[in-house]
Amino acid sequence: MPDKGLVNYSLYLITDRKVLGGKELLDCIEDAIKGGVTLVQLREKNINTFDYYNLALKVKELVRKYGIPLIINDRVDIALAVDAEGVHLGPEDLPIAAARKLMGRDKIIGASANCIEEALDFQRQGADYLGIGALFPTKTKGNTEHVTLTQLKAIKEAVHIPIVGIGGISTENAASVKAAGADGIAAASGILGSENIVEAARRLKGL
Amino acid sequence: MPDKGLVNYSLYLITDRKVLGGKELLDCIEDAIKGGVTLVQLREKNINTFDYYNLALKVKELVRKYGIPLIINDRVDIALAVDAEGVHLGPEDLPIAAARKLMGRDKIIGASANCIEEALDFQRQGADYLGIGALFPTKTKGNTEHVTLTQLKAIKEAVHIPIVGIGGISTENAASVKAAGADGIAAASGILGSENIVEAARRLKGL
Repeated sequence: MPDKGLVNYSLYLITDRKVLGGKELLDCIEDAIKGGVTLVQLREKNINTFDYYNLALKVKELVRKYGIPLIINDRVDIALAVDAEGVHLGPEDLPIAAARKLMGRDKIIGASANCIEEALDFQRQGADYLGIGALFPTKTKGNTEHVTLTQLKAIKEAVHIPIVGIGGISTENAASVKAAGADGIAAASGILGSENIVEAARRLKGL
Repeated sequence: MPDKGLVNYSLYLITDRKVLGGKELLDCIEDAIKGGVTLVQLREKNINTFDYYNLALKVKELVRKYGIPLIINDRVDIALAVDAEGVHLGPEDLPIAAARKLMGRDKIIGASANCIEEALDFQRQGADYLGIGALFPTKTKGNTEHVTLTQLKAIKEAVHIPIVGIGGISTENAASVKAAGADGIAAASGILGSENIVEAARRLKGL
């Protein structure tokens, strides 16, 4: 794996088993990677530790073959146990500073921010990148605060770490997110909910 | 805190907020310690990481005043983040060997076992103590396999690590559990579900 400062955030896949329509998660992740995904976040809710760990082991084995970094949503213990490249932390997860103590300097810690104040605070606490959103309405998450592209642009100008736009990103709006300054775009159902996942990733990548 | 080999397992409190009848968990734990509890396991289910972490910080601060070790149910990340003395792992949690790698040699890892085969396997994987049960019917956990006192005795003879009897332990049966060879007894509702928690712990301690 490259140094964490060299990670490519351009097309960031976030998993969501609810949108797979019965397909195997591992197959879908592999298709997304073939389509150009540069980073994978395994995101599971309402799953026990044993199952999350075993799933993470399998995903890690898969993404390693492609040299793609793995980020684990929420769980520092699982990230460390499977030697993932990092964690993504939201407001219901460990504080960034607490996670950093457990993960050391070389692991990636990402955080979700929806305003400049949060973005600066999380950067100060040691976040390596920020997920900014939700930018557009999304099926994956319910109640998420809305962030405009103007706000994303202001956040990008305020911080020095990479930012990834998230929430309802599609071929229709992806270019506008990059134009606003995002280092990358993140998608869950926008890739995994497609009939042809390889093609969906490829289209987003090309924008 | 004493060396983990010197931990006193005689009266092991497992928390369960459902049986508190509106009382504050921290007050109840403190009462249980005043009654003679020697070890506290914070056990939370259906709680997010942020809330579990913050609760664990508070419990750690409380038990530290009394020199009582804190064990966190399931979550290695939270145990490490609050510098608890250890974790307790069940079948839905991280495998013992994976947890050991993250926690180092000095932290306590306990595991739930209900037969000799499991007990020997978990000891081999590096468990420091075993919770054996459920010995008697219990309100705290639903579907748990029943272990007899004869089986507990056989497990005690088969392993060299401390064993703690668990499941429906009360003043009526606690003496029989110790007589069967348990190094300690664990209780949740048997202590926390009592009107007078100090007295309930004291009675179990004296048996």
